[in-house]
Amino acid sequence: MTAAQAGPAAQFGVDNLPYGVFSAPGIGPRVGVRLGENVIDLSVLLGDEVFARPTLNAFLARGPDTWAAVRARVTELVAGSVRSDAVHAADTVVMHLPFEVADYVDFYASERHASNLGRMLRPGQPPLLPNWRHLPVAYHGRSGTVVVSGTEIVRPCGQFVPDGGGAPVFGPTRRLDLEVELGFVVGVPSAPGSRIGPDEFGEHVFGAVLVNDWSARDIQSWEGAPLGPFLGKSFATSISPWVVPLAALGAARIDLPAQDPEPLPYLRGSGQWGLDVRLTLSVNGQAVSWPQYRGMYWSPAQMLAHATVNGARARTGDLLASGTVSGPERGEYGSLIELSWNGTEPVPVGDQVRTFLEDGDEVTLTASAPGPGGTRIGFGEVRGRIGAARP
Amino acid sequence: MTAAQAGPAAQFGVDNLPYGVFSAPGIGPRVGVRLGENVIDLSVLLGDEVFARPTLNAFLARGPDTWAAVRARVTELVAGSVRSDAVHAADTVVMHLPFEVADYVDFYASERHASNLGRMLRPGQPPLLPNWRHLPVAYHGRSGTVVVSGTEIVRPCGQFVPDGGGAPVFGPTRRLDLEVELGFVVGVPSAPGSRIGPDEFGEHVFGAVLVNDWSARDIQSWEGAPLGPFLGKSFATSISPWVVPLAALGAARIDLPAQDPEPLPYLRGSGQWGLDVRLTLSVNGQAVSWPQYRGMYWSPAQMLAHATVNGARARTGDLLASGTVSGPERGEYGSLIELSWNGTEPVPVGDQVRTFLEDGDEVTLTASAPGPGGTRIGFGEVRGRIGAARP
Repeated sequence: MTAAQAGPAAQFGVDNLPYGVFSAPGIGPRVGVRLGENVIDLSVLLGDEVFARPTLNAFLARGPDTWAAVRARVTELVAGSVRSDAVHAADTVVMHLPFEVADYVDFYASERHASNLGRMLRPGQPPLLPNWRHLPVAYHGRSGTVVVSGTEIVRPCGQFVPDGGGAPVFGPTRRLDLEVELGFVVGVPSAPGSRIGPDEFGEHVFGAVLVNDWSARDIQSWEGAPLGPFLGKSFATSISPWVVPLAALGAARIDLPAQDPEPLPYLRGSGQWGLDVRLTLSVNGQAVSWPQYRGMYWSPAQMLAHATVNGARARTGDLLASGTVSGPERGEYGSLIELSWNGTEPVPVGDQVRTFLEDGDEVTLTASAPGPGGTRIGFGEVRGRIGAARP
Repeated sequence: MTAAQAGPAAQFGVDNLPYGVFSAPGIGPRVGVRLGENVIDLSVLLGDEVFARPTLNAFLARGPDTWAAVRARVTELVAGSVRSDAVHAADTVVMHLPFEVADYVDFYASERHASNLGRMLRPGQPPLLPNWRHLPVAYHGRSGTVVVSGTEIVRPCGQFVPDGGGAPVFGPTRRLDLEVELGFVVGVPSAPGSRIGPDEFGEHVFGAVLVNDWSARDIQSWEGAPLGPFLGKSFATSISPWVVPLAALGAARIDLPAQDPEPLPYLRGSGQWGLDVRLTLSVNGQAVSWPQYRGMYWSPAQMLAHATVNGARARTGDLLASGTVSGPERGEYGSLIELSWNGTEPVPVGDQVRTFLEDGDEVTLTASAPGPGGTRIGFGEVRGRIGAARP
């Protein structure tokens, strides 16, 4: 059969070829690429042991020359007849976390998101804090709770101040939220003490995934001073199973929005770019928001340059997430706290409304970007259903 | 020879037996225990492959029954004549990072430290924020830059606001600091969605290390709102090479200080304990402070219970650091920002003074705790010398 003929899924065409880790009955976790409705087993197709492993990390560590060579070879091979034992229908495989996460850094790169939060949480004060336009604000998240799409999200318990104030109580979060983000995956590590300049992004970063940074807003707001988010975020972060290579996102590159003031030299590059990625947030199958990555203030390359400017080494499997993608209109906000304006304006979800998430709700993020010649590059989806809190 | 006869080092007696990873000429990194002035190669002594590995993780994952059995067997064997090919003089081996760090969480568990910082940074306001007595405040640090004692600490560059204010500048930190901490190492993972109660600490945690959480105060203060520390901490965190087992710290257990208000039930245990560990901070060989762990407000078990109460799984290699250990007297403060009161009162260091660290300075933390029968259990040291910033 010709794998490319195997289905309509135009977002997984030959110009995309994202990488993931799958298993099937009798076939242990290994690396595949997605093509149409099929998954191509690279360990069979290419006979390279690096693809017989249960994570992408070893392949990611090999670097841009290998990434390009493998992509070229796969493109060539799938144009012809692919041996049938390398081809699995995508709906018959189980997808796994595609890479072992080293350090997970979550940024705050959307001006609208940061401003919305500032307006809600610091009313009467300037919506952006003084540092925001000078550096890409970020914090380290919990690597060990990054999970693949489809993993149930158990409503976390924690400590928070009840409505009306008073002493903190313990219980299931009452303000469970999501955050629509894009994440970038480091392949090639940097040496301790060295920096990755903004023009060196492509020498280290392999590709991008969808990220849902689940957030318990009541826990987060009580715990967060002065050291930032901890348990309000650390229960789960979901990512999509397919890592879209940067090589597939060439046509999606766009100019950055204007940055004022001009960033310090270490954040300037000769060819800074943003990405024209269009995302959709759905709750229970109802689309509720359409964030666009194109408006993000800080570029992916600036995020990585900042994260390493102090000499911190980057490692294979580092995940740098953008922070919530929120556009200027309410229909482009990337979290429920923004869409419901801190819970005061319920959001229509089909024939229901939501402020924050209820048990049983299923949240799905999808995204696509321009590909060559008018095609679309799809990111697939990241999905999670809310399970009831455990006592 | 009898290994126990090999040297004076009373803090590494038979009641201690801390674990580390060493290499020697012709001998790759593997697990050893420290006894006196010697390192005993456990892969040779016990013939178990788990000790032939370059990290402790696989051994740590085996759990308390194995930890106890190995400790009993090693104690028995070193009482007799140890085969000479298992014994190396400690001053002839190279020590490595003892475990692969999974997630690194840094707490803020000293009331005096949190109060001191509050007084300096929020003058005129209550020194403790409202959440501090209700939960052990913490944030995630960078796992990939945890390094072993002896690793050079290159002065980090970053963005900060110059003295006198104005626009931020980029350059080497001018306020490079240290933090005296104790860290706890998770051996047995927890299942996603489960919690580790305060009485289950010993079923998961293997032992303790010394931690120096290097901090660039100018970078930290500019970047830190609203998401907490990032580049001001992520350039390096040093730990001691020897992991002291909890089993060696039985005689060091003490009652916790009174906690008021009473913590929520998930933070209460039937047998909560603190640790009588006495630390010494030295700069360039001159002791400048003597923090004591015994005054820490939140217990190690409360830190782990809190970190997992939202269902976040713990993994083998998780490092939970206490935050700066500061006692009530100035001679017990665990950081230079406290010892120099935010740089206003220079600290005598031999015949010199310091506010923050200068290039070439060497910082050493040591510690010991009571052992059985009047002995001392030593933690060894964590040491780092400041190297000049790289342009």
